[in-house]
Amino acid sequence: MNFTEILEKKRDDFELDKEEIKFFIDEYTSGKLPDYQAAAFLMAGFLNGFSKNETSFLTQAMLYSGEIVDLSSIPGIKVDKHSTGGVGDKTSLIIAPICAACGVPVPMISGRGLGHSGGTLDKLESIKGFNVNLSLEDYKKIVKEVGLCLIGQTKEIAPADKKIYALRDVTSTVENKSLIAASIMSKKLAEGIDALVLDVKTGKGAFMKTQKDSEALAKLLISSGKSMNKNVIALITDMNQPLGSHIGNSLEVIESLEILKGICRPEQEDLRDLSIELAAYMILLGKKATSLKNAKELARKAIKNLSAFNKFKTLVKAQGGNEKMLDDFSLFPAAQFTHLITSPSKGYLKELNALSIGKGAVILDAGRANLDSIIDHAVGVIVKKKVGNKVEKGETIFEIKYNSEDKLKASLKLFETAYSISNTKVDKLDLIKKVIGA
Amino acid sequence: MNFTEILEKKRDDFELDKEEIKFFIDEYTSGKLPDYQAAAFLMAGFLNGFSKNETSFLTQAMLYSGEIVDLSSIPGIKVDKHSTGGVGDKTSLIIAPICAACGVPVPMISGRGLGHSGGTLDKLESIKGFNVNLSLEDYKKIVKEVGLCLIGQTKEIAPADKKIYALRDVTSTVENKSLIAASIMSKKLAEGIDALVLDVKTGKGAFMKTQKDSEALAKLLISSGKSMNKNVIALITDMNQPLGSHIGNSLEVIESLEILKGICRPEQEDLRDLSIELAAYMILLGKKATSLKNAKELARKAIKNLSAFNKFKTLVKAQGGNEKMLDDFSLFPAAQFTHLITSPSKGYLKELNALSIGKGAVILDAGRANLDSIIDHAVGVIVKKKVGNKVEKGETIFEIKYNSEDKLKASLKLFETAYSISNTKVDKLDLIKKVIGA
Repeated sequence: MNFTEILEKKRDDFELDKEEIKFFIDEYTSGKLPDYQAAAFLMAGFLNGFSKNETSFLTQAMLYSGEIVDLSSIPGIKVDKHSTGGVGDKTSLIIAPICAACGVPVPMISGRGLGHSGGTLDKLESIKGFNVNLSLEDYKKIVKEVGLCLIGQTKEIAPADKKIYALRDVTSTVENKSLIAASIMSKKLAEGIDALVLDVKTGKGAFMKTQKDSEALAKLLISSGKSMNKNVIALITDMNQPLGSHIGNSLEVIESLEILKGICRPEQEDLRDLSIELAAYMILLGKKATSLKNAKELARKAIKNLSAFNKFKTLVKAQGGNEKMLDDFSLFPAAQFTHLITSPSKGYLKELNALSIGKGAVILDAGRANLDSIIDHAVGVIVKKKVGNKVEKGETIFEIKYNSEDKLKASLKLFETAYSISNTKVDKLDLIKKVIGA
Repeated sequence: MNFTEILEKKRDDFELDKEEIKFFIDEYTSGKLPDYQAAAFLMAGFLNGFSKNETSFLTQAMLYSGEIVDLSSIPGIKVDKHSTGGVGDKTSLIIAPICAACGVPVPMISGRGLGHSGGTLDKLESIKGFNVNLSLEDYKKIVKEVGLCLIGQTKEIAPADKKIYALRDVTSTVENKSLIAASIMSKKLAEGIDALVLDVKTGKGAFMKTQKDSEALAKLLISSGKSMNKNVIALITDMNQPLGSHIGNSLEVIESLEILKGICRPEQEDLRDLSIELAAYMILLGKKATSLKNAKELARKAIKNLSAFNKFKTLVKAQGGNEKMLDDFSLFPAAQFTHLITSPSKGYLKELNALSIGKGAVILDAGRANLDSIIDHAVGVIVKKKVGNKVEKGETIFEIKYNSEDKLKASLKLFETAYSISNTKVDKLDLIKKVIGA
């Protein structure tokens, strides 16, 4: 096979077959294909697009570039959830223990935050001693013993994705749905799962800003999963405002623990409801419930009877974390200072821009501006009002938790323009916009 | 300035300004921009296209990446011709001495053949001792003293083009009109010319297969030239069948000398007519004639009185070549063997595919399959019939001049399928399809 012919075929907008895509992935991963030819190919694919079939072939070739974890010795249907990322999205920390408590094993390989979007690994590292860098052997052992495990991508998992992602990052070819789908699915399918629930975010704080784009991405993810005989369901959910009330690493772990303990303030209801919904679909895919309604009841029960919270505590211990922190939030890193953003007038909260708040939080060091950035686990934002809520003049809309006056100053414009107040009544935002593949 | 922003702008199909294009060219030429980012940029430009303005900016930035020869000390309007390349196209060897004989200085920096398309430098090197690798100083001196000079691209001329062309070649981004135009014009404008006549080929043996594409390329070339205040005229001319009768390096020099000596067999008329036409436009741009008609008379006269032939002889001597060869063609390298392609039936020649003949000639070693190929100056093809000519059964359509039985064998299928015979009368091909910018 000749790469020039493959490149010209993609350039001229013809569909590539499985062998041609495999040739590209294999030659590039092995270092035989130079970066500049791969870069031209990625840009041609970015602009001409990849078909559903091509996306599945990309996913499979990237998946088979590395190891696929074999969890067949663990009984039950292994189910994971993946979110396309957003602001305040900490549902993994809540639903993984709920599902495990309901008897559905959850093998979860997660990522770090980048840009305004947070990452599960960074959040978990707020817990002192929590080790996300386990070997695949230890990962299998913990899934088997505890029923869930939360680790980072190991070098054995989809090495093609690592190399291609690095090239996409410097060639402005990141935001292509097929390349995004193949990157996500090649890693998820390597975890050893049987089924997957996708939380595809849509709105201002999501990578996909429109519902149309989010649905298109969801469909590519589902078809790539189905091409590998996995059961995949996608929920299209709102990411115009932050999810729940807490943004920032320690803050998000604390909020997750509150939900697992049955605490839920009004501004946290969307987080709790979405967590129950996602967990219910996972329980259903894991065949531990007879219906979605039954699955939701099981999920709520796992919160109420603290079995999910206790499962999380067992996991923290298994992964080397200080489980005492789960009962004493004062042990979490906390920011030194608080700055209040208050309403200039009476009315209804019309907007709470997730992207602006996410970007502001990055400036405070809650997130990464680039891959080398060092995170401050203590800082972040606590939201007191959500879209549709009534606010009085002078009432706090959100609190900024910070450690550096300079960084607060640099972020203030983003925060101060992140909200708007309306004189007239405003509807709450629709949380779950669509379910695809159920 | 930030290259990622420039890359994203091009990717998203926005027009780049002069500074942004200059930044790309300068950073890439200086080695600051890595190949993979330039490759992604070239593919984005290939697929989204470049505007007329962007093409001019590319041309200028590539031109200014190197030296621009200053010929202002030489009196007269310096005029060159550039052909986009084809099979049997040796007009440069004929019109440069005609123009010089008519008092128009011709500074000509040419290229080598690649693929089915021949190159002036390779042809000239059929003349023993002819040195195309002169310094720019010697080049200026010969233009001043002889009135013309024919050399190859020096390292001082448009280094950006060299580097970008090499990357285009391995990233399938060669066939983009704007990139082609910028590559041609950046080199031509560096020669020290005041005006330029373009011969934009169209048809089976040309890089642009349709008249529409050829005209679009011609317009980009003209507007890039005009943006540098140069007078540019383009002729769109036929390249469905080979031009003239001879294809191959020694053979083409011999045919050019025949034309310059006033010899013209019927199958050479298109070559002679196009040469007169192109030379006339150059004489007109060089302000040595009052009208195109007058310019054609001058060109014909320069052939008739042998002043053009003698000018070429002076040039050959000045560039170190053996001028005795011009009067004794037996001194040229000649192929050992001849194979005849004869007509299987009586009728009219309907097609004589320039591309097939050009590709066949490459297999014989008349041209280069790749940049490292070594040329055999002796081999080639001599055409006896042109499209529209009557042919008898068994009559020779063309002769193949070859040195290797294996190579003949490998090329025969191309040659044997290069022509077709019709029972009914066939029109001659239109030679000059359009003149743009006159």
